[in-house]
Amino acid sequence: MVTVPTIKLNNGREIPQVGFGLWKVTENTADTVYDAIKVGYRLFDGAFDYGNEKEAGQGIKRAIDEGIVKREDLVIVSKLWNTFHEKERVEPIVRQQLEWWGIDYFDIFYIHFPIALQYVDPKDSYPSGWTNLEGKVVQSKASIQETWEAMERIHDLGLAKSIGISNFQGSLIIDLLRYARIRPAILQVEIHPYLVQEELVELAKAENIAVTAYSSFGPQSFLELKWDKAFNTPPLFQHPVIVELAKKHNKTPAQVLLRWATQRGLAIIPKSTTIDRLKENLESVSFDLADDEVKKISSLNQNIRFNNPRDYLGTLHIFA
Amino acid sequence: MVTVPTIKLNNGREIPQVGFGLWKVTENTADTVYDAIKVGYRLFDGAFDYGNEKEAGQGIKRAIDEGIVKREDLVIVSKLWNTFHEKERVEPIVRQQLEWWGIDYFDIFYIHFPIALQYVDPKDSYPSGWTNLEGKVVQSKASIQETWEAMERIHDLGLAKSIGISNFQGSLIIDLLRYARIRPAILQVEIHPYLVQEELVELAKAENIAVTAYSSFGPQSFLELKWDKAFNTPPLFQHPVIVELAKKHNKTPAQVLLRWATQRGLAIIPKSTTIDRLKENLESVSFDLADDEVKKISSLNQNIRFNNPRDYLGTLHIFA
Repeated sequence: MVTVPTIKLNNGREIPQVGFGLWKVTENTADTVYDAIKVGYRLFDGAFDYGNEKEAGQGIKRAIDEGIVKREDLVIVSKLWNTFHEKERVEPIVRQQLEWWGIDYFDIFYIHFPIALQYVDPKDSYPSGWTNLEGKVVQSKASIQETWEAMERIHDLGLAKSIGISNFQGSLIIDLLRYARIRPAILQVEIHPYLVQEELVELAKAENIAVTAYSSFGPQSFLELKWDKAFNTPPLFQHPVIVELAKKHNKTPAQVLLRWATQRGLAIIPKSTTIDRLKENLESVSFDLADDEVKKISSLNQNIRFNNPRDYLGTLHIFA
Repeated sequence: MVTVPTIKLNNGREIPQVGFGLWKVTENTADTVYDAIKVGYRLFDGAFDYGNEKEAGQGIKRAIDEGIVKREDLVIVSKLWNTFHEKERVEPIVRQQLEWWGIDYFDIFYIHFPIALQYVDPKDSYPSGWTNLEGKVVQSKASIQETWEAMERIHDLGLAKSIGISNFQGSLIIDLLRYARIRPAILQVEIHPYLVQEELVELAKAENIAVTAYSSFGPQSFLELKWDKAFNTPPLFQHPVIVELAKKHNKTPAQVLLRWATQRGLAIIPKSTTIDRLKENLESVSFDLADDEVKKISSLNQNIRFNNPRDYLGTLHIFA
């Protein structure tokens, strides 16, 4: 089995650089997670919003029950959804999510988006997505400082060993660092060769915040959502630069895209539901791109962001 | 004299859509301001950082003393420098800046950047720029919320009739709106055809925040600072699209660039030190581009930002 490199967080904890992303895993989640563990995955990146935490937990339980791994071998990650940003909402939903997973702590717990929405009871709508029960996008007044302080309490309580932020921009990160008692250990954002995020990665590095790249395959990651923008952007898997490097290194385009990310020092969380692809993604760390090859891929940057609420909701311009 | 359209702020106040920007006016400031008033300018956009508030105030006093304008005809704008973000620093420096101008209120007072730096006494260094007395860039812990609350007090005291923000990104604006008791009336950011800022302008419009575009001429605005990026970017004044539209409308490229901004609903604050150019810029509102011409200019967008502290300081990634 391939040895996955680790990344050391600013609190001393280590995480595998390659994990499994649970976004858009809607079927056979428990089996997929169980298979991923057997293949060698140790980090599972989930979220309230993905609607599959219970099933993911079942896959983990099976692997632990069978003695394949122990809880402490795993890095279990989840995220605070937008509807729980008020300080009094954070701890209860974290405890609920832990119960779904069947565990008593998260290794990493993120603020999913710097967006605060009106509370929706999960009993009434799960996962509730972007709208309230009337189908409207309604913001709440919880500031990021309020939410971060609640995240710090989650950390104090031992419910999350590390706390992080996702989909944050530079100036908001800088603001958070002014009042943070516990600094974020990790930042998760969309990164692929069409959205290189050089400045953001540079900021995170300077502040000793690890970075997880999501949607490493660019448009490919959004085809299943049937987003026009994903269909209208040339696939990275067929991009001449990627194809050429894949041939040269005798790897797949997917592996080239993933290696580009990990050689930039990023953690990655590709998703797959087939054993072969699970292995392929994990094994992407087993070759090296030359520095100029990394740069060549970075030069594909076009600042194309796929996961932008402004594009699919017409509001919440968090990336403006 | 040309009639300058006005923009109505969310607090009911009106400002002229074309003003005079005092950035980089280092010589004959008083005369330039006086001349600008005679030509028809009524809004003057200054800042602590520009180092010319006393001189600008002298030009205004002369025009008022000569009966050319009254104080209430003018919209005098200034900004809070980064070294005064702590709550106890705001009121004293605003009062000092008002004294320099020789006035008892600002019409608009902005937070200049979402950047908090260590305090530097203006008596020791004026304008102090980005570094402390040891020549180092040192951040302070004042959050944007702390600074905004101090700005609100300035407003309460009548020292600023409107308060605004400058160089803010979307997610930070959204966060500020969660805790703002007084919403920002106006946002000032870099905007030109190479940095169209469609999403940010859209956000501001949705939130009823007026927008002032600075550096309307793009690279041209930065040549005098001798920045490589400005020299390495094709001048907008010579860009075929701009030149062609200028010829078609029998206007100058500068006027086309300014009209593109004002037809997008933006306020502009071009700078010039010659009477002819002062007039030319003011008269840019006296013709109209067709909608498709505005769009054609917008299509020149390349997300090229010139005024980025990360580029000239290697830190403070507020636009990441």
